[in-house]
Amino acid sequence: MDAIETILQHRSIRKYKNEPIDEAIITKILESGTRASTTGNMQVYSIVVTKDISIREQLLKCHFGQKMVMEAPLHLTFCADFNRFNKWCYARNADPGYNNFLSFMTSAIDALLAAQNVAIAAESFGLGICYLGTTLYMADEISKILKLPKMVVPITSIVVGYPDESPELTDRLPLEAVIHNETYQDYNNERINELYYEKENSELTKRLIEENKLENLAQIFTYKRYTKKDNEFFSNKLLNFLVETGYLEEQ
Amino acid sequence: MDAIETILQHRSIRKYKNEPIDEAIITKILESGTRASTTGNMQVYSIVVTKDISIREQLLKCHFGQKMVMEAPLHLTFCADFNRFNKWCYARNADPGYNNFLSFMTSAIDALLAAQNVAIAAESFGLGICYLGTTLYMADEISKILKLPKMVVPITSIVVGYPDESPELTDRLPLEAVIHNETYQDYNNERINELYYEKENSELTKRLIEENKLENLAQIFTYKRYTKKDNEFFSNKLLNFLVETGYLEEQ
Repeated sequence: MDAIETILQHRSIRKYKNEPIDEAIITKILESGTRASTTGNMQVYSIVVTKDISIREQLLKCHFGQKMVMEAPLHLTFCADFNRFNKWCYARNADPGYNNFLSFMTSAIDALLAAQNVAIAAESFGLGICYLGTTLYMADEISKILKLPKMVVPITSIVVGYPDESPELTDRLPLEAVIHNETYQDYNNERINELYYEKENSELTKRLIEENKLENLAQIFTYKRYTKKDNEFFSNKLLNFLVETGYLEEQ
Repeated sequence: MDAIETILQHRSIRKYKNEPIDEAIITKILESGTRASTTGNMQVYSIVVTKDISIREQLLKCHFGQKMVMEAPLHLTFCADFNRFNKWCYARNADPGYNNFLSFMTSAIDALLAAQNVAIAAESFGLGICYLGTTLYMADEISKILKLPKMVVPITSIVVGYPDESPELTDRLPLEAVIHNETYQDYNNERINELYYEKENSELTKRLIEENKLENLAQIFTYKRYTKKDNEFFSNKLLNFLVETGYLEEQ
């Protein structure tokens, strides 16, 4: 299938068939990951490929018990990884200077571009995928389960398998909501109302507001889904982990 | 072209024809960006689409004078953006709690997955692209040029245009260098030697070592390309900008 078609048809899949994935397909989608752009061709990322059920059971807890983690036969954890590069430098009498925030971001970018290539490649084979945003929340626990050494940080994960559902395309804001011509045009209230009109007036939103007994969709995000308290808790947890693993200095 | 083929044929393009891109194609590749997965469907990113020559001249300086910035007719800056979401929350009597590190990473991930979709979509139309890793180094200066408000951070940029070169595929480490089965297997010196053998013995590497008058390729990275001093300088610059723009608290 054409790349654009594959991209435009993306849905996150949360129900999977109990059907294994051919090894040749797995190799091809991983190879697709490695063809993504990488800063200075350093390839400062790693992909941990987990199929073992008992390890996925441990990962399940890190991903807040989302059932698809056990249903999908393939679990990929994309990690920022300066460990391999550093070991190479040490073995070559070169002094690496990557224990800092910029290098963390560099390696996180490498990991994410590879992840999206893998996602698209998987979908082009008729597989379904779902990203697990919980990865950064639980980076320290995932690190223990996957035996990650210092300077390796799980950034995102995707589960991969044959879909057992065919959900509708997810709604998006109108294209002009996320696009700025030449420079950024900031939003006033009127523009916000226009851009969020369709989302706020969908049947899904109306149902969610009723279920959550809140005034509107924005409150569902701030009071239920992505709360200040949780965000601050997981921010501190992640920053502590970045210190522990060697990317950030102790403050 | 099939998605896998498009992905496997990716080369970064650094020379471009003086040929404009059809508006319908630009719209299609931007739309492709918006179909990427986004955390909780919040779409906490923005894409600044810059064609104007005088603005690109200003951006050129931020991108260390790389000529392709002026050659390629389309310049896309992918930004972590909680500004729009926050404005929506404020307009809806919802109290956003996204001025923290986790939310910065969440929005950076959104921006990067969209960027890679755009890159692949562009390539599927026969366009060439190149990522600009300088974006994070110069986030504060780029922010001024593109008039980014608080809580908007440029994460990466790509230039897009019709290729005026057809470079060879870039070398990569063997697939097994970046893949770990089930859990992470750390590298010892022998394994590092094996995995880097081909890269270290290529004609390109031999030429670079001679030109740089250094012992080996690793030293070219640590002493010339990505030095400790530069990394630390740009880390502090970026962290200060994250404080200034509202994602991080002052330490």
